[in-house]
Parts: sequence; structure tokens; C-alpha cells
Amino acid sequence: MKIGMSHGAGGEVMGKLISETILNNLSKKSVNGGIGLDALDDGATIPLEDYEVVVTTDGHTINPLFFPGGDIGRISAAGTINDVAVMGAKPLAITNAMIIKEGFSIEDLDKIIKSMDETCAEADVAVIAGDTKVMEQDKIDELVVVTTGIGIVEKGKAIRDSGLNVGDKIIITGSVGDHGMSLMSFREGFGFETDLKSDVAPVWGMVEKALEVGGVTAMKDPTRGGLANAINEMASKSGVGILLQDEAIPIKQEVKAVSDMLGIDPYEVANEGKIVMGVKPDLAEETLAAISKDKYGKDAAIIGEVIENNNNNNNNHVLIETEVGGQRILESPIADPVPRVC
Amino acid sequence: MKIGMSHGAGGEVMGKLISETILNNLSKKSVNGGIGLDALDDGATIPLEDYEVVVTTDGHTINPLFFPGGDIGRISAAGTINDVAVMGAKPLAITNAMIIKEGFSIEDLDKIIKSMDETCAEADVAVIAGDTKVMEQDKIDELVVVTTGIGIVEKGKAIRDSGLNVGDKIIITGSVGDHGMSLMSFREGFGFETDLKSDVAPVWGMVEKALEVGGVTAMKDPTRGGLANAINEMASKSGVGILLQDEAIPIKQEVKAVSDMLGIDPYEVANEGKIVMGVKPDLAEETLAAISKDKYGKDAAIIGEVIENNNNNNNNHVLIETEVGGQRILESPIADPVPRVC
Repeated sequence: MKIGMSHGAGGEVMGKLISETILNNLSKKSVNGGIGLDALDDGATIPLEDYEVVVTTDGHTINPLFFPGGDIGRISAAGTINDVAVMGAKPLAITNAMIIKEGFSIEDLDKIIKSMDETCAEADVAVIAGDTKVMEQDKIDELVVVTTGIGIVEKGKAIRDSGLNVGDKIIITGSVGDHGMSLMSFREGFGFETDLKSDVAPVWGMVEKALEVGGVTAMKDPTRGGLANAINEMASKSGVGILLQDEAIPIKQEVKAVSDMLGIDPYEVANEGKIVMGVKPDLAEETLAAISKDKYGKDAAIIGEVIENNNNNNNNHVLIETEVGGQRILESPIADPVPRVC
Repeated sequence: MKIGMSHGAGGEVMGKLISETILNNLSKKSVNGGIGLDALDDGATIPLEDYEVVVTTDGHTINPLFFPGGDIGRISAAGTINDVAVMGAKPLAITNAMIIKEGFSIEDLDKIIKSMDETCAEADVAVIAGDTKVMEQDKIDELVVVTTGIGIVEKGKAIRDSGLNVGDKIIITGSVGDHGMSLMSFREGFGFETDLKSDVAPVWGMVEKALEVGGVTAMKDPTRGGLANAINEMASKSGVGILLQDEAIPIKQEVKAVSDMLGIDPYEVANEGKIVMGVKPDLAEETLAAISKDKYGKDAAIIGEVIENNNNNNNNHVLIETEVGGQRILESPIADPVPRVC
């Protein structure tokens, strides 16, 4: 059996590989009773006295390396900072391992590191450890960056994907599909006709404001597989159903136009500066107001609510109510429709 | 300016790239006054209450993926566990990010993960987070594994590269050059004529025994660039000289034979299960005895001592006394003579 591209695309095929070949072969997957690998959450935790250390890792192989709104340096830092943030933890530091192709431009590397630095500075995160490997020209495509994030959260206060309760409101912190669709349109060559750009940003500041209200029950950043993947994972792990209102989901006009043109569902493509969260119903408006005060949360919206899981098929419990009153199932994508975006 | 292979080979060329393009471009490189990226030690630390969290990251691109004595799974786990261990910290967990080539054998991946698991089990280390990316066939060579290690050490008790004091004894925990020379001989096709194999192993158990004696002042695992690189870094960071006894350095007969045949200095090639340490003189014999009790420390030896740095040229303060009484300078290699070994 061979690895196919879909094994890395964030959908069901990838889930099977991870479960059968990775999880099944590893015996120790958590420390001190913390959140471990089996949870397949955005990060893991190591409980230590009053705090838990939150750890997350992510490989970045984006094409192209520089794109409208960001570059691989910014996405490598922001992606990992956000994975720590959605665990409810304050990101403290990242590590940066780079695999570079022989012949890669040192000027470009310089720009990428500067961009990583600016992104970290936004969230007051340090780069504390690194590794550099160089591979021959025919052995690697430009640059692979693997970042690991470290944060801390008060013991027992980590926010899980699985924390949704019936009645919770679902908030998305801004418009969906910006990252994936801007990359796709840039690659297809009509990027110059729009001002569409990636939303890549470190959003700990915004998450912190939401957490202060005290009602967040679950969080996830909808990267690979987009909103569709994130919301299905949250529903499935929480054992609940979700009903979204289609017209409430913020989406930029340009994103909608490009999606229609390319026949790609904007709910299935990656976001790099947005968070999906479940919030206790009585604190939803206050949480939304707090998020909206952050520069990355201006377009935040309540897009639906958590309902009973009345469906026997666990894969199909996210429903979207359309403007005309119909309902459709929002499925987790089989594979990311836009390859190599994060 | 373009990246060359020597930019990743662990020598001076790589040092220049790291200093100019990476360190100079990053503004925040440590957390809470801990050991940060600037120290270029084996890992960084994040002080939290009574403990410091130790973090280290390492990319693995070894060729071939399966070699006598190990595979990329074992080396990815052991290398990172050892980097935590030489900080004097108990390794708790690793993260595992894999970039896999489309078409890679799932059976091979299965073997690699099983091997990673066995290696972690030896050191009671968990795999708590991971990431899987797949790249097209022409974009990557088989498999790149990036592991990040997390450990803890009592506050202020981390062991630095820079802790050597004049008079300290230098211990190496076993024979040098096994990993690099066994890979080289395997690649050259005369691996079958010897039983030479890699020493790749997680050595926290051995390090813990040494630390219990209480005299360890500095530690480093001599991977890329071998003993020559590790000992020069320790001397340079500690601002001391070192005098080694050539005949005291343990080396396997087969390693010596292959080095002579290929014209490669065995002191300059990678080890993956050995530690170089500085130890207070009055505790050196006791530490050696403790190390020798561990299965990975049977061939440990005191190989020299720390002397005053009488040399104005900071790059040349490691001397080796040969059997016939002469002295030569042991320089840090410009680049690793055996590419892609760890």
C-alpha cells in the first residue's frame, strides 16, 4: 500500500492513516494524565503543578512560499501560535526546524525569518530552539518549515474540541475561506484582479479577549479542510449535532466569486486567522462583543448552535439551514480541495 | 547568495548562516529569562515556578531510512530524547511531524513508527502530538521527520555546554564514530563485511545515573560534526582549553579500519548514542563507574581534562596528545564529511 496525496489532505483518508499506522503503533501517548495524541486535538498538554504545558507541532509546505497576505514564515509562526491559543493556552514560544533545498536564495530565507519574527512579536512569542537541514536539489521542494508551539494554561482549564454542549452558540471570528481561496486564485493567475489575500495572523490576543468572558466551551482553528472539517470534528468529538445558518456565515464577496468560478466549496478550504468556538448561550453576545474589539475579530458572527445528535450516523450531524429554509448536511471533506496551502 | 550543502552540515559555514540569517533576524529568543536560541545549546528552557521546561527540535533526513542498527524512526526519537537529556532534564514527551513522499510504502511507515515507539518506550517518553504532510513525488526525498522534545529540570539545574571549569575531567560514554562510519560503510557497500552498526539509542537512563553523582558540569551529544565539533563548542562556550589523550578515546577496531580506508576522521562523524561530559575532578571516577553500569555506557572513558585557554585564537583550543607524546590541534570540522546521517 502506498501513500497518496489524500493521505495528507486533512480528510477521512488521512484520518484512517493516522489512526491505523500512527496511533495504533504508539503505546505511550500522554504524560501525567494530560491531553495526549489520541485526542487528536489542536495540541497536547503536560500537567505540572499548577499549570499545564501545551504542546503542538505543524509542518508547513506551502506553495508558493510568498503569497498575497503572507509567506511561509508568517504561516509557520501563526499556525502554531493559533494551535496553542485554541487550547486556551497563552503561547510562550515556538521552535523552528527548517529543511532547505540546496540553492535556495539566502535573501528569501532572510525575508522569511523576518516575517516569522514579526508574526511572533505580534503575539509576544519567542523562537527558542531551531534546527537547519539542507537537502540536495532533487530531494526537496524549496523549503519545509516545522514549528512546534509551547504554551501554558492553568491546570484543568484547557479548552477541548470536545467541550460543546447542547444550546451552546457557535461563533466564527471572521470571514471564511480567505486563505485557501486567495492562494488558489493567486495560483490560477487571477489574483491580481482582486484584492483578496490570506487572513494568516496570530490570533492569541483575540482568543484571550474571548476567554476572559468565561463562556468558551470548545475551540478549533479551521485550517486544512476548512470550517467543514473543524465543525464536524467538534461535533463528533462532543457527541452533539450542530445547526448552522448559511446566511450568518461571514464570507467575502471575492471569496464567493472565486469559489463559484472554480467550483470549490469555501467552507472546505483553509483559514489561517480564524477560530470556530462554542460558547455558553447566555455569554454568547458578550463574547462576540469582546472578539469584535480585536482587529482580527471585526467580522465575527454567531453562525449557529449546538443541537441534540438525533442522527445515528455519527459522520452526518452538522446541518446548514439555507436562506430559503431548506437544510443540507455539511460533511467533512474527503480531502482538501486546494493542495499544499498550509 | 544561495544555500549550499555545507550550510546544513554542522560546521562553520552553517554557523555563519545561523548567526547572520536566523539569530540576527529574530528579536525575542528566550522566555522568562530561560536559556534561549542565542545560546545555541542542545535545547532551550522555559522557567515555570519550581521547574524549567526544556525544549529542543531536530529535523531528520537520513539516507538510507533503514540502516544497520536503526532507522529514521529510532534516530528521530533518540536524537531528540538525547538533546533533552544533555540539558540535564528528564525527557517527558516528543512531538512527531512527518513530511512524506507520495508513493511512500505504508508498510515502511508502519515499521518506522513501531521503531519510534520502541525507542520512546526505552526512555519512558510519550509521543503527544504530531502532524502529517504528503508532498508530490518530485518534491521530496522519501521522508523527513521533525521531532521536538519536551522535558523538565529543577529550576536552575539545567546543564549547559558552557559549564566547563579548569581541572574538570572529560568523559565520553562510549566508542566514537559508530553511527557515521557504519552509515558510510553501508552506503559504500562494504557494510556486510563488518558487524559495524549505528550506536543510535536513547541515553537518558545513563545520563540520569551520571547526574545522580552530582559532578557533571557540562554535557553535549556529539552528533553532526562528531566529537570534534562537540568538544570545540563546549571549550569555546566555556572559554577554556581542553587537552585530550588520543589513546584514551574509545574507538572500535572496525570504525578505525573504515575511517582509514575512506580517509575520514572518526572524530568528525556523528554519534547517536554517546555523550561528552565535563565532570568535577574529584567525582570523575565515581561518575565513570555510574555510567559504566548502564548498558549504553560500558565503554565509557575519561579522555582528557579542561585546561586554561592559553591561546588567543578562540577557535583552536582543543589539543590532542598523541601516543608518541606529540600534540595536535583538534579543530571543529568545516562541514560534516558524511552527509545526511542524522
